[in-house]
Amino acid sequence: MKILIAQLNPTIGAFEANMAKILAALDLAREQGADLVLFPELATTGYPPEDLLLLPDFLNAAAKCLDEVIANSANLTIIIGTIRLSIGGDKPLHNTAAVIENGKLLGFQDKTLLPTYDVFDERRYFAPGEKSQLWNLCGKKVGITICEDIWEPQDRQVGFDEHYHPVSQLALLGPQLLVNLSASPYSYEKKELRLHTLVRTAQRLKCTSILCNQIGGNDSLIFDGHSLVVDSSGHLRAQGNSFEEDAFLIDTEHLPPPKRFITGGAGELFDALVLGLRDYMGKSGFKTALIGLSGGIDSAVVACIAVCAVGAKNVIGITMPSRYSSESSVEDSLSLARNLQIECLTIPIEPPFQCLEQLLAPYFKGKAPDVTEENLQARTRGQILMAMSNKHGHLVLSTGNKSEMAMGYATLYGDMCGGLAVINDVSKLQVYELARWINRDQEVIPKSTLLKPPSAELAEGQKDSDSLPDYAILDAVLVAYIEKRVPPKIIAEKFEIPLSLVEDLVHRIHRNEYKRRQAPPGLRVTEKAFSIGRRFPIVQNFH
Amino acid sequence: MKILIAQLNPTIGAFEANMAKILAALDLAREQGADLVLFPELATTGYPPEDLLLLPDFLNAAAKCLDEVIANSANLTIIIGTIRLSIGGDKPLHNTAAVIENGKLLGFQDKTLLPTYDVFDERRYFAPGEKSQLWNLCGKKVGITICEDIWEPQDRQVGFDEHYHPVSQLALLGPQLLVNLSASPYSYEKKELRLHTLVRTAQRLKCTSILCNQIGGNDSLIFDGHSLVVDSSGHLRAQGNSFEEDAFLIDTEHLPPPKRFITGGAGELFDALVLGLRDYMGKSGFKTALIGLSGGIDSAVVACIAVCAVGAKNVIGITMPSRYSSESSVEDSLSLARNLQIECLTIPIEPPFQCLEQLLAPYFKGKAPDVTEENLQARTRGQILMAMSNKHGHLVLSTGNKSEMAMGYATLYGDMCGGLAVINDVSKLQVYELARWINRDQEVIPKSTLLKPPSAELAEGQKDSDSLPDYAILDAVLVAYIEKRVPPKIIAEKFEIPLSLVEDLVHRIHRNEYKRRQAPPGLRVTEKAFSIGRRFPIVQNFH
Repeated sequence: MKILIAQLNPTIGAFEANMAKILAALDLAREQGADLVLFPELATTGYPPEDLLLLPDFLNAAAKCLDEVIANSANLTIIIGTIRLSIGGDKPLHNTAAVIENGKLLGFQDKTLLPTYDVFDERRYFAPGEKSQLWNLCGKKVGITICEDIWEPQDRQVGFDEHYHPVSQLALLGPQLLVNLSASPYSYEKKELRLHTLVRTAQRLKCTSILCNQIGGNDSLIFDGHSLVVDSSGHLRAQGNSFEEDAFLIDTEHLPPPKRFITGGAGELFDALVLGLRDYMGKSGFKTALIGLSGGIDSAVVACIAVCAVGAKNVIGITMPSRYSSESSVEDSLSLARNLQIECLTIPIEPPFQCLEQLLAPYFKGKAPDVTEENLQARTRGQILMAMSNKHGHLVLSTGNKSEMAMGYATLYGDMCGGLAVINDVSKLQVYELARWINRDQEVIPKSTLLKPPSAELAEGQKDSDSLPDYAILDAVLVAYIEKRVPPKIIAEKFEIPLSLVEDLVHRIHRNEYKRRQAPPGLRVTEKAFSIGRRFPIVQNFH
Repeated sequence: MKILIAQLNPTIGAFEANMAKILAALDLAREQGADLVLFPELATTGYPPEDLLLLPDFLNAAAKCLDEVIANSANLTIIIGTIRLSIGGDKPLHNTAAVIENGKLLGFQDKTLLPTYDVFDERRYFAPGEKSQLWNLCGKKVGITICEDIWEPQDRQVGFDEHYHPVSQLALLGPQLLVNLSASPYSYEKKELRLHTLVRTAQRLKCTSILCNQIGGNDSLIFDGHSLVVDSSGHLRAQGNSFEEDAFLIDTEHLPPPKRFITGGAGELFDALVLGLRDYMGKSGFKTALIGLSGGIDSAVVACIAVCAVGAKNVIGITMPSRYSSESSVEDSLSLARNLQIECLTIPIEPPFQCLEQLLAPYFKGKAPDVTEENLQARTRGQILMAMSNKHGHLVLSTGNKSEMAMGYATLYGDMCGGLAVINDVSKLQVYELARWINRDQEVIPKSTLLKPPSAELAEGQKDSDSLPDYAILDAVLVAYIEKRVPPKIIAEKFEIPLSLVEDLVHRIHRNEYKRRQAPPGLRVTEKAFSIGRRFPIVQNFH
């Protein structure tokens, strides 16, 4: 059987544009002599549509798309992810795979396992499918699953009842081919885990297994594509492109030879962030990006990502020195801009900063300078960035990293201004890794940016290390506490650091919830980002 | 049977403080000769704990609380909401009622219906209870339910299977008393609906039914308390205080005579907002509130709420005139401050505004003044408010209303600055209602504030009506589209307005998602607020 795996990049709710991509893939399938065409989960609507699923008009539009796919299915079998009304379910919809053959809708295979953890809220909208069946398609007995249906993630392991697991059900039926339609978001650990999951499924079902994944950025989420074909022994036989659209044909009777699985490192993380930024801008109509360049490593890395995402001529830097800026911070910004061939403006913030200081002096009498004056500087820079954005239509990119966001080491309405927080799920140490990767062949980011100790330069002689522990310790604690949910006491023991330090860091993480709640959305590249997948009360007294 | 209904105000994760309240209620129960004591849903942890439920330490702390309640239950029967580990469920926890009798834990009645709509994500954490039973307590057969267990909300009506409904199960068993532990948040429609729900339950089960509700503000959510006792015919026989802690005794054999149910109007809405603000400040340790007074009705109403919440001496106003401010806007702000007896500073924004204009002039050459200059003013005001907050520790209250937030008629990092958006779930017309209610006995808010046409005063002669339709139309469309999810076409027909107008408004609602995502949390007083209960993609092309 010849199968075209159509790894598409839909835009949420852009039904016409999504249909154009789907129809183009069907034409390609016919050209290439495919029997079966696979599309990702919710290919008609884009994933995740969130509360758009509650709008009656949205459901009608999705239903019309399905009709159009059916009308264009001559001489093809198609399995495509979409939504359908649930009859008798405890929610109004199913997340489903429509099975179509040569102009006819054969039926639906509904998603059974609906994730309700991290960024996933599928039980908010969907009723679970009730049972798995085999479909006789192109002469083979095919099992169909959707994304989570083949997973056994951590949150389910507690007492998960195997009888309801679609793979367990299918194992009793003996499929000859397993298909999985996915919208499985990227994280730097996920790619390998996804392959393992498919391999385990293939081995259990003893049949060729194919995962067709969405690609593209949608708000915080980056879908890496990277669709997979695994044989009945669990060997990887084909894979779709990472971070770009793809449509590739395989013949189940003549699979390509086994191939090695390549994991990514810093280059992969970079590609993910480029895709996330490019799609955020492209899908929302922004052409140009504006970045405040501080001479530091965070803004330098963001500028490099932006140049790859939208091109050097569409990226503008501004360096905004104050009395506390070192000479090197302007120089490094200008060197970076030269290396990247981007425009860079220099707008010193002293005049408005001094003006505000004078204006507020009567109200600050008898009070020593403190974080207030630091924030005044950061917010003046925010004013300038936003004014340039308003006047010229640039998207402001905020440049805070995950370590800073965790600690609240950022000024709300200051350096936190922006439409997208490009690296707010990237720890400080990973930012350095990205920078070294960027500089692997030539010096793009000035060496002095990489070498100087990190500083916000908002007060005389200030360094990050004045208020934060060493980033090696901080980042290790953050991964353990935020991503792995390890209790503070165990973290202290594991890393042999004082419990009081860990408790202080944990306290600061939670006390700064209020800042992060007002942060721009950030691109998610770990299994637990500061985004819609992490939900803590602002006001609470536990930590 | 004598029952003490302990309508407590817990703080999320404040286990010690919550336990102190619980133990005090147990002492009171013994003093008053109660047989049974009822507490709200998740009384030990506070509701909603959100992702704190994923932390192992948090679960241990909750378990210790339960042990302490058991140890202090001599001569009492207690039904208290808490969490417990799930054995064999598809999530690690149950939301449960612990049933305790004279030093012994009799068992648990788990919540069966776990809401996953609007602000509720209970399937993210909890496995559903499997069946309802009767408990022999103090000589009566008692049915125990938790919040949603007695509801049949809209989202469940689609094909909801009656066999799984706890009330249906209990109906077969014939309880003599029905108990419901709730953490049911306030909205101005909810209070009456909650009574109807309990009345329907009582009539169906033909027994006295008691709902014990949490009170207090937790982030966006306001719990109104207002616990209810309904007899077997469905007559209201007692109710707890609204918006304050309460612990009241009823005797099931001698219920008080039937009483009328009183619904609230503007005064009730005002009380809700006062509680939400007071608890947000009190639970997070803020003592003083800072408000930018524009002379308009929104900031005036917020100032009145703040004075009721934390007292006049803890509220500071700042009026920040510019070249576009009318004389009356400063005058009205000062009159309001006098009437409220709050301090009011006047800090004109002209110096920093002009300074920024000059600084940016070279980059704005050939471009006409536009929203950029308006935003510069609003953000300069934001700078001043935040600097005063940083220096003096005030909480800045943002004053945008729901109609503005829907339209994006607000400046991000400008008037949207603040720790809490007090009235961002109150429509413009309701703001006027609140103002009239505030002025019912004497002029607190200056008459001219009520009479002048709304204006942001960010450009010469500007009025809201220049860029927005009449608020009567706007607010009606917003309720229909946002709260009721009516399709645009039907809204246009219903209100006899052009479809193009409705579509434009709907488009503006969705295009401004990016602003609201960075807004401070707001107090929720409707069934669909701009908060965690409304989840739309920022980038989408449907509307």
